[in-house]
Formats: sequence, structure tokens, C-alpha cells
Amino acid sequence: MIILFGVFIRYNEESSPFWIEHRKANNISSDIENDFYFRYPSFQDVHVMIFVGFGFLMTFLKRYSFGGVGFNFLIAAFGLQWALLMQGWFHSLDYSDGKIKIGVENLINADFCVAGCLIAYGAVLGKVSPVQLMVLTLFGITLFAVEEYIILNLIHARDAGGSMVIHTFGGYYGLSISWMLYRPNLSQSNRLQGSVYHSDVFAMIGTLFLWMFWPSFNSAITDHGDGQHRAAINTYLALASTVLTTVAISSLFQKHGKLDMVHIQNSTLAGGVAVGTAAEFMLMPYGSLIVGFCCGIISTLGYIYITPFMEKHLKIQDTCGIHNLHAMPGVIGGVVGAITAAAASEAVYGHEGLINTFDFEDAFKNMTPTRQGGHQAAGLCVAICFGVGGGIIVGCILRLPIWGDPADDNCFDDEPYWELPDDEESIPPVLQYNNHMRNKDVGEEQQISHDPIRSPLAPSYAPLHQHLKGGGDTIQAHDMNPRRRDKNRAFTPVSQKRPLSGTL
Amino acid sequence: MIILFGVFIRYNEESSPFWIEHRKANNISSDIENDFYFRYPSFQDVHVMIFVGFGFLMTFLKRYSFGGVGFNFLIAAFGLQWALLMQGWFHSLDYSDGKIKIGVENLINADFCVAGCLIAYGAVLGKVSPVQLMVLTLFGITLFAVEEYIILNLIHARDAGGSMVIHTFGGYYGLSISWMLYRPNLSQSNRLQGSVYHSDVFAMIGTLFLWMFWPSFNSAITDHGDGQHRAAINTYLALASTVLTTVAISSLFQKHGKLDMVHIQNSTLAGGVAVGTAAEFMLMPYGSLIVGFCCGIISTLGYIYITPFMEKHLKIQDTCGIHNLHAMPGVIGGVVGAITAAAASEAVYGHEGLINTFDFEDAFKNMTPTRQGGHQAAGLCVAICFGVGGGIIVGCILRLPIWGDPADDNCFDDEPYWELPDDEESIPPVLQYNNHMRNKDVGEEQQISHDPIRSPLAPSYAPLHQHLKGGGDTIQAHDMNPRRRDKNRAFTPVSQKRPLSGTL
Amino acid sequence: MIILFGVFIRYNEESSPFWIEHRKANNISSDIENDFYFRYPSFQDVHVMIFVGFGFLMTFLKRYSFGGVGFNFLIAAFGLQWALLMQGWFHSLDYSDGKIKIGVENLINADFCVAGCLIAYGAVLGKVSPVQLMVLTLFGITLFAVEEYIILNLIHARDAGGSMVIHTFGGYYGLSISWMLYRPNLSQSNRLQGSVYHSDVFAMIGTLFLWMFWPSFNSAITDHGDGQHRAAINTYLALASTVLTTVAISSLFQKHGKLDMVHIQNSTLAGGVAVGTAAEFMLMPYGSLIVGFCCGIISTLGYIYITPFMEKHLKIQDTCGIHNLHAMPGVIGGVVGAITAAAASEAVYGHEGLINTFDFEDAFKNMTPTRQGGHQAAGLCVAICFGVGGGIIVGCILRLPIWGDPADDNCFDDEPYWELPDDEESIPPVLQYNNHMRNKDVGEEQQISHDPIRSPLAPSYAPLHQHLKGGGDTIQAHDMNPRRRDKNRAFTPVSQKRPLSGTL
Repeated sequence: MIILFGVFIRYNEESSPFWIEHRKANNISSDIENDFYFRYPSFQDVHVMIFVGFGFLMTFLKRYSFGGVGFNFLIAAFGLQWALLMQGWFHSLDYSDGKIKIGVENLINADFCVAGCLIAYGAVLGKVSPVQLMVLTLFGITLFAVEEYIILNLIHARDAGGSMVIHTFGGYYGLSISWMLYRPNLSQSNRLQGSVYHSDVFAMIGTLFLWMFWPSFNSAITDHGDGQHRAAINTYLALASTVLTTVAISSLFQKHGKLDMVHIQNSTLAGGVAVGTAAEFMLMPYGSLIVGFCCGIISTLGYIYITPFMEKHLKIQDTCGIHNLHAMPGVIGGVVGAITAAAASEAVYGHEGLINTFDFEDAFKNMTPTRQGGHQAAGLCVAICFGVGGGIIVGCILRLPIWGDPADDNCFDDEPYWELPDDEESIPPVLQYNNHMRNKDVGEEQQISHDPIRSPLAPSYAPLHQHLKGGGDTIQAHDMNPRRRDKNRAFTPVSQKRPLSGTL
Repeated sequence: MIILFGVFIRYNEESSPFWIEHRKANNISSDIENDFYFRYPSFQDVHVMIFVGFGFLMTFLKRYSFGGVGFNFLIAAFGLQWALLMQGWFHSLDYSDGKIKIGVENLINADFCVAGCLIAYGAVLGKVSPVQLMVLTLFGITLFAVEEYIILNLIHARDAGGSMVIHTFGGYYGLSISWMLYRPNLSQSNRLQGSVYHSDVFAMIGTLFLWMFWPSFNSAITDHGDGQHRAAINTYLALASTVLTTVAISSLFQKHGKLDMVHIQNSTLAGGVAVGTAAEFMLMPYGSLIVGFCCGIISTLGYIYITPFMEKHLKIQDTCGIHNLHAMPGVIGGVVGAITAAAASEAVYGHEGLINTFDFEDAFKNMTPTRQGGHQAAGLCVAICFGVGGGIIVGCILRLPIWGDPADDNCFDDEPYWELPDDEESIPPVLQYNNHMRNKDVGEEQQISHDPIRSPLAPSYAPLHQHLKGGGDTIQAHDMNPRRRDKNRAFTPVSQKRPLSGTL
Repeated sequence: MIILFGVFIRYNEESSPFWIEHRKANNISSDIENDFYFRYPSFQDVHVMIFVGFGFLMTFLKRYSFGGVGFNFLIAAFGLQWALLMQGWFHSLDYSDGKIKIGVENLINADFCVAGCLIAYGAVLGKVSPVQLMVLTLFGITLFAVEEYIILNLIHARDAGGSMVIHTFGGYYGLSISWMLYRPNLSQSNRLQGSVYHSDVFAMIGTLFLWMFWPSFNSAITDHGDGQHRAAINTYLALASTVLTTVAISSLFQKHGKLDMVHIQNSTLAGGVAVGTAAEFMLMPYGSLIVGFCCGIISTLGYIYITPFMEKHLKIQDTCGIHNLHAMPGVIGGVVGAITAAAASEAVYGHEGLINTFDFEDAFKNMTPTRQGGHQAAGLCVAICFGVGGGIIVGCILRLPIWGDPADDNCFDDEPYWELPDDEESIPPVLQYNNHMRNKDVGEEQQISHDPIRSPLAPSYAPLHQHLKGGGDTIQAHDMNPRRRDKNRAFTPVSQKRPLSGTL
């Protein structure tokens, strides 16, 4: 990576010391017109979304918070370096000297590119090893850069907030991989596939930072001036409207009219996804509300009906429900974008505004809004194809038994990949157990700590529940079991008390 | 809402594609002079304060974190749509075509408007249903818009950071509502009206984001250039000084000299409230420190003495202590603003600076600083009147028995409104309970889960403590009691395991 | 403080109402050229790093989260007031009227100054009282201001991100103090010197906000235009590269190849420290990657090997490992800065760029890059000397037995300084205990709550573990103990259980 950067990457004229001369040559009156001041605040907001937003959104699992936020951190940091190179080759290559010239806009685009892979991570959360994630990211970024080049440059579709380029692609990419990595026995990890009270609050940190900064996401790389302004307003309105619908639907379709935290954490964001493509167009404020309104309904119903259906019948296990949060709203966003583009007119945009908004320049000077609508639709198809196709291929690669993925009953558990703090409290309730039991206990523990990771070399061991039931006196076994497992667990001091009193 | 937006709301000239033509017509040299670049970073900071700041500040209750952050999210998202309309009608209506033209400043104002209602939410936190909150917000926003119009436009008071308009109004609005909704038997929920270790750390997230971004809050809609600059500096200093006083007072007045987390979470913010009105004036750095110093003392003492007094003698139950954080400091802010305005002179502000800072233009060309001081004081009175009066009226409406508010012993509990994660730990051990007890237990559990919400249709059930003491052998009662109670608890999976194993 | 502010501090021309006249006099075309718009977004990011970043990074201890985030808040708020004064006297004093004129750049510098002391706090986290922290901060800020004046003004070294001025100084200052305050019996608090699952997730909030906003930290006070732009890009790249190396090294050197959360939380940030000085130079993108790469290795290995070594052989107890995160990378940063400066040439920077970047103006008009490199190295030496020397002196002062520092077995515990929420659940399982036992229990508890703080007046009490081993029937003691107190508790402060059983 260092070598590639050394060979290819240089500062552009706004970030190199030649800026002073560039400024004078171009008659720019002030340093404030450096692109840095147009985009840096938005960049930082996007940055927060990528690392805190996506990261904490994935901490909701009771024992996979380290993995959620930590691996997110790892693959995002890896991905953005690779993305700078890949996107640079396609978009920012200076043909005069063969170098990629980077500035703040490249950093934003790299973050966007990484977002596609983090979305895919959401589908396989808790079921893959960090090495698999790195592979997923490496290929994902590459595919993304190609797909982005085709959609934005060749087809000349506009996609400010990446409904198509980022969300549709990332969503289907992740779902296809999850389909290829289907685990029929995942139910053995059921005990861990859920949240606890505080992990849900942590996830709300992610949700809120995503929600708040989504206007920055959709406006970060739009045109200076009115483009950024309008994109932020549209996204803000769509998101506000989605929250209301999500709460209403969640309450209506749940037993007892209670709200489900999963919907609040995820579906509230669907409006931001769906308004991505059209954010810089004249969607009009009420248009944004309508988009947000519809997405809130579709996304929430998706969590209630479609995700269980997909898991049962289509063999797609989608841990975070990215189909409802990214894939479907992304497609809606593409369609909305196509319609809005096709409906554009000089009356609404003004003559110069129309050219400026849709970039009807150079090779596309004669483009009409109607045709632009067609191009947008074509872009959406490309995104879906790349997502599904790429996902299947990468999924095949990830099925190779060399990546150290976790066993079926070790999914959604930080244990295999992280040194966990010893939450156990000091004084060991030893006396009630006879030596025989303790030895057995220790023996099994070692066995577990040695091969929690499924690999071709180590024989996969029988699920522990059966193991225990098979041999050993059931009562004692049940008594022991929670001790061994709970030991490294955050919230169950109780279990260690229980055996004690049980003996009385 | 969609229809209203469709009829009324349009982009303003800085966010529509006509910006290019507008720019040329007005001889604006660069896109960077779009208001977006002046205000968007501040807007995002304010946005974070509203959703993360207020939201997480209210997660401190041990079992109401979902409600604190979730309902905050809901009513803020609802409120800002309504606020855009209400404020638009009063402030941004373009009389030429009857449309409201929105830009980034409108978004900031909508967030401000919502802040008033979120403050009111603080007083009734945990004691009202989401429907009541929506009603509270609907009326609150409406009252706010009218009050703001009177204070800022008719009286021509200046209130950059909203000490009067937002905090005084919001504080008294919430307190009056809380007074109308007084619950004499709230002590039945005492067990839940407190924090646990980690919920206090969550609340610190809210505190810190509010604290850090308060300079943006107070400077967001002040004048371009020196106005924003000065408002940020003043707020920064006032807040820094408040922290020190709060810590000192908290330590002095507590037993053993220990610090109380409640004070650190809340009183440290009082300085930002109190400096709101005067932030853009020439308060001088030492003036900001003095304001912060006083507010830290008053607010902390308020938590120690006034809140218990109000609850006992005035029948105002103020969950978050908004009287100490918003109402009192808001009034102080209004007074400080009036004094600072009255003391203004051309020597300190310069001729143009004075006109610019106080907007002595058009109809108010002949205004003098002294008279401006009087107008500021009048504005403060209007804010208090609207707060108290509006709160009483809305409180009456909220007392109607149709809103599904929680029963007295279900307050401060997420159980009635949220699907809570099953914190239970997988394998149940037990043996100590006979069937008789289990049945009883299950029976009571069902009873609870069926009517946690107080409604005219369901008979309110006797408080559980009496229930238990009345009948039942004490030993069993004590034994059972924790079981039933643990049910709603974050960290004690025990209760739910026991029944299962009881069958062995 | 108020008096000092009253005497000395005034607004500068960009934050006073005379800005309008200043603007016209200097022919500035727009309000947007007020320094506020260049620096305020960066300032807010730095602000977040100081309060949320450093604060939450220190919440990782299982029972010292309040202290970590709360005392961080306290000393930062205190420190920035003092820093405004100290730095003002050295840097911003207007000799015409003897006043300090402040603007947004002063606020950023005050935050920077505070950062040095917060770094030092990391070394003594959990082992000092708030009063000691205030003293540490008071002297730390003073030393910092002098050291900064020598390095930046007298030696004319450049240090945009403060690798030398902030991190090297702060790191060695903290380590020297920790060395002076060495506690041979600290192992008595071993039970609390670790994390629990959720405290590690809280710490990740701090890590991520530091990581994300570090580009703002390093670019906040660099030159307008390309300087800020380039500093942000360099830091971004160095940080990304550090994450990968940290994960790789952490995994390679741990048993079973598991990742250690301590490394992820801390070492991932080392790259930002090390790139601080050189961030605004033409380090080139690959140079940033190399710096980040090396720092990831060194910092992670530091946690694995050097910290235990220092604690054992050098008697330096470094709670947060600031030696690995700040001191070492800071020194590396200084060296990298010196080399990059010495290697500068007009070919790379351009004529005007070179002058502009290194400030070769006025008294330093004839400076050459090579000599600048020597000055950078001299600056590094000054920073180390001030850090070590100042730390030893302040450490001596802090050893005076008047500051109320915690006893050896009360370190890393919030109990002595905070009112902790009663995590215990309401109804006491009374019947199992006879009165005799309960009374004794209460008696000892009171004793504990009376003297958890080591003072010359109170005799330190014997370590509890030995106490326990000495007497008492083990079975009953063990049985009662966890049940009564642990029952509903997340974190089970052991200390409170022990005395109980000790009496048996």
C-alpha cells in the first residue's frame, strides 16, 4: 500500500503549497475559496457517520459489541486507503504525469466507498472472521470503483447521496454474500442473537449520529452553493418524516402496541437513503416528506415480514436487516431520482440552474431531462447487477475453508476474536463443587478456548447443549453450564450466585 | 403535514437553482457567500444537541433510557416539521406568493423551537405517554411560534441564544404541565426513579455534547462575522466557569464532600442558558465568567434545595430538574440581557456596530440602548406568561383520561411502551420453587403485563407493595418479590430463569 | 480568575463590533473572511476531542468511569480559562494597551494547552484526588505556556499538531509525576484495575471521536488554505495506516491471536500524534502512511512489553499507557518533523510556498530549511526537558500529604469522590440474616465510607484480602456475600462485600 501510494498519490493544487500561486493565477480573491472550506465540515460529518454511526449501530448484539465497532473500524480504515487508490485511478488520474491528485473531495469519496462495504458487513455481522471481512472489503471497494465509474461517468447518471451507487450496491452485495454463506445451523447461536438493554442504548448512539449527519452525507459532494444547500434541506425533511411513520407502523404492527427498538434504530434512517439520488434535484420539500413517509412504512414492514421470510425461504440471513435499511430504500431512491430527473424543466430550475444541476456540459450538452431519467434508471440496474453478481462471486471465495470463520454455535460472540475482560467477580464460589466436576469443567473450557474457530484442521466439536445433555447428570450439567459460559459475560453476575444457593 | 408542505413550503433563493442568477444579479463574488457556509456547521452542532444532547441527557434513569432517547427522537422529528410551518407563517412568509421560503436558517430555527418542547419533556419524563408528548409538542410549538413572534418582532427584543424565548418559555411550560399532572402516589415508582452506574455514563454523553456545542447554539443565528464570533466566545467562557462552581458547590453541600452526578450532568450547562440573550452583546469576557459563576451556584443549590421543596410543597414533580437548568438560568439570562443592552454605548460598540448588533433599523431607527433594555425585560415577561399560561392550558388537556398515561407504579419504566430485550440468560437452573409459587407468580405477571397503562377502561390495580403485605406469608412474599420486580430489570436475568427450572 | 479576565482580556478586532469598520478599512469583501469561518468547525472538532474524546477514552476502568469523564471535564474547564490567560500573556498581548485580544484561534490554543494536562492525567488516572488534579493542571498549563513560547517563538520551530509541544511534553510530564507518586502497594487495587464489557465500549466512543477528529486537531491552527487542507489529508492517512498495523501486531503478539481492546483503543491513535509536527509540511501521502505504519508497531509493542517493564523496573505506573500513545509517538513526530523540514526545497514547495509554510519572514528571513531542521530538533529537546523537569517538581508538590489522595486499596474506584447510584435493588432479602450479622455489617460499612481517602490524620487500614484470609468461616461468608449485595448489580464493587465476610 505504501509503495502504491508512493508511486501514484500526490496532493492536488488546492492542498499543495502551490495553492498561493494557483490562487493568484486564477484570480481567486481569498483562501476561503479553497475547496477545503466548502467541504471539510461535511467531510467530518460523513467521517463520524462511517466510524461512529455505522460502528455503534452494530453494537446492538449483546456479546458482539467489540466486533461490531472494532471490525467496522478496521475495515473502514483499510478500505479508505484502498478506495483512494481505486477511485483515484478512475476519477482523479492526472494524465499529464500519471499521478492521482487528492484533495478533500477524494477523502469524502473514499469514505463513501467504504460505506458500501460497511453496509455489506451489516448482513454478515457476527458470522464471519476479520480476515473474511478484509477480503470482502478488498473486492467490495474494487467493484464499487468500477461500478461508480460506469454509473457516474459512462452512463452520466447523477447520484449525490449514493442511493444507487452506495446503498443499492452495498445492500445487494451484502445480501448475496450472506446467501452464499448460509448457515443452516445458525440457530445454535440463537442465545446470542439479541440485544440487552444497554447494548440497545449504545446502538442508539449510532442511529442518532447517522440520522443527524445524513444531510451532510447527501450534500457532501454536490455542487457548491445551492446544490449543497438544497440537498441538506431535502434530506433533513425526508428523515424527519420517516421517524414518524416508523414509530406509527412499529406501534401498529406489534403486539400490545409497543415499540420495537430494532425499528427505531434502523427504519428511521431509510428516508435518508431513499432521498439520496434526488437530494440535489428540485424534489421540493413536500416531495421529500412523501419519500420519507413511504420509506418509513416499507422499511418497518420489511423488518416485520420480509426479513423473517428471507431467512426462512430464501436462505438469506441478514443480521442487521440491511435489506430494509439500504437495499429497498436504495432502489426506491434510484426510482425517485429517475422520475425527478425526467420531470425537470427550465421553468423549475432556470436555464443555467438546469445545466448546472445535471451537468449538461461537454459531451452531454444536448442531453434532455427525459433522457437523463432513462440514464438514471440504467444506473440503478447497473448497481443491482454489480451488487448481486459481485456478491455471489465474493461469497464463493469466502466459502473457501481457509478464512477461520466462527463455528455455528460461536456466531455473534466476541469470544473467538477478542481478549474479553474478565467480568467475573473475584471470590470464586468454589466449595460446592467436588473435584471431579471442576476438572471436567476446566477440561471443557480448554477445549473451547482452543478451537472456537472453524477451520479445516480442527474437527468441529459438537454443540455444547447436546454435549451436555448427552453425558453427565442433567441437573448438575445445567448447574455447571451457565457458570462456564456466563463467566465472560457482561451482565450476569447472578449466575455465579445461583449455583451457590442451589446447593443449599 | 405533506399537504401543508405542498401548499406552503418552497426553497428560498439561496437553496434553489436560481442561486446562480441571484448571485450574478447581486454581484456576489463566490458560492462561499451562500448562507449555507455561514451557518451549516453551527446547524449541525445544534442538531447534535437536540438529538444526542437532549436525548442522552434523559437516559439517566435506570429503566427509562429507551423512552428518554427514543421519545426525544420522536417528538423532535415531529416538532421540527410543525415548527417549519408555524415559524414560516410568522417569519418567512413571502407575501408576494404566499409561500414560505426556507433555507438553512429556518432549519436552525426549527431545531430551536423543538428545544423548547424537549425542555418541557424533561419535567414530565417518565410520567406521560408518547401520545401525550405529541400533544404537548403540537401545542408547545404553536405557542412558541406566537411567543417568538411577539418577543422578537413586535417587542423587538434580541435573543440570540434563546434564554427567554426557548429556555424560560420551555422551562415554565414544562413545570406548569407537570404541576397540572401532579401524581400524589408517584412514590410507588420510587424504585425506578434513580440511575445505575452505566446509565449515568450514558447521560454524560448528552451533557458533554450539549456543553461543547452550546457556543454553536448561541451563535447559530447571530449576525455574520463578529456576531457569531463573539457569541461563541462568550458562551464558551460562561460554560467553563459554570463547571468549576458546580463542582465546588456540589462538593461543599453534599455529605462527605462527594460529588453528585446529577449536578455534574445538569448544572454545568446552566451558564450556557444564562448567557444566551447577551451572547452577541459586548458582555465582555469577564462578564461571561461572572454570569457562569452565579448560575453554577444557583443551579446546583436549586437541585439540592429547591427541587425537593417544589415537589413537597408546590406539587411540582420535576424529573430532570429543568427548573434549575432552564427556567431559573433562562430568567437570569433575560435579566442579564436587559442590563447589557441598556448599558450599551457607541464607545463600546462603535457607531455602526451598535446599529448592527441591535438591529436599530427601519421602524426601530430611533431606538436607544436604554429603551432596548426595557424591551428586553418586556420580552422576558411575555416568555414567562406564555410558559405558565400555556402550560396550564395544555396540562388541562393532558389530564383528559384518553391519552393512555402510565399508572403511578409504572412510571419511569420502559415496559409499557417498548418491547424490551430479554436479558435473560439461556439456561435456567433452579429447583427452589414449588409449583404453587410459580403459578402465583405467573398469574401476577400476566396481570401486570396486561394493564401497565392507566386507562379509563381498565381498572387500576392496587399498588403492589400493599398487595404483597396484605396477603401472603411474608417469607414467600419476600422471596417472590424480587422475582417479580427483577422482571423489568437490566441486569438481573435471574427472575426469568427461575420459573423454568422450577419444573425440573 | 474573574478579576484577571476583567483586567486583561478583551475581544480582538474580528470578534468585536468594530469588525465592520475593520473590514472596510482593510478592504475585506465579505464577512466570510472573518477567521471564525476558517477555524470554527475545526475548533468544535478539537473541543469534542478534549471533552468527549479524552473523557470517554478514560472510562475504560470498571469502576472509575465517573472519575474518568467527570474529572476530565473539571480540569479541562478549569485549564482552558487559565490557558487563555497564560497563553495570552505570551502570545496575544497587545502592547499598546496591555490587553490580551482573544478570538477563535485563542480558544483552539487553550484547548490544545489543556490537552497536554489531560495526557498527564492519563498516567495518574485513578490514583490522585481532584485537588491534586487541579494542582497538576495549574502548573501544567503554566509550564506549557512557557515551553510553547520558547519552542514556537524563540526557537522558531513549527509544530502545527503539537507532537512536541503537546504530546511529548504532556507525556513526559505525566510519566514523571507518576514516577514521583509511585505506589508500591497499588496491587491492592488490582481488582478494579481492569475493564468490564460495557466500559470498553464506552471507551471506544472516546477512541473513535479522537481518531475521527484528529485531522481537525492537526489542521486547526495551520495556515489558511493549503496548510489546513494538507494537514488534514496527512493526518487522515497516517491514522488509517496505524489502525491496520495495530490490529496486525495486536493479533500476532497475543495468545491465540486474539485482539486486545486496549491496543485498539489506544495504539490506533498513535499515527495522529506522530504526524503532528510534519502535518503541514510536504510529508507526501506515502510519508504519512510510513509514519502511521511505524507508530502502530511501536505503540502496540509498547503496550505489550514496555509498560509492564516500566511498572516493574522503573517504578512508573502508567494507567492509560500514555508513554505508548503520546510520549513515544510525540518524540517520533518531532524527529519526523525535523527531517521533513530539513529536506524541504523550493522544488517541492515553490518559492512562496516555502516562505509561507515555514514562516521565513521578519527576523527569520534568512533561515534555510536545513537550519530549520536543527531548530525543530532543539524544540523537541526543550519539550522533553520541560516535561521531565516540570513533572518531577510538580510530583514533589503532589507528594505533600495534604491533598487527600486515595488509599492504595481505593484506587481506580469512584467511591471516595462520587455519590454512586445505589445499584442494589430495593427490597432487602432480610430473613436469611440474623440481626447480629446485620448490625456488624452496617458498622463496618460506615467505617469504610468514613475513611476511604488517605490522609495524614486517618490511619490507613489493612489490606482487605489478608483480612479475609485471616479469619472467618469460609462457607457462610462466601455464601452470604455475593447474594446480598451482588444480587442486582452490574458491576459488583467487591470492596463492599469483603468487610462483611471479614467479620465472620
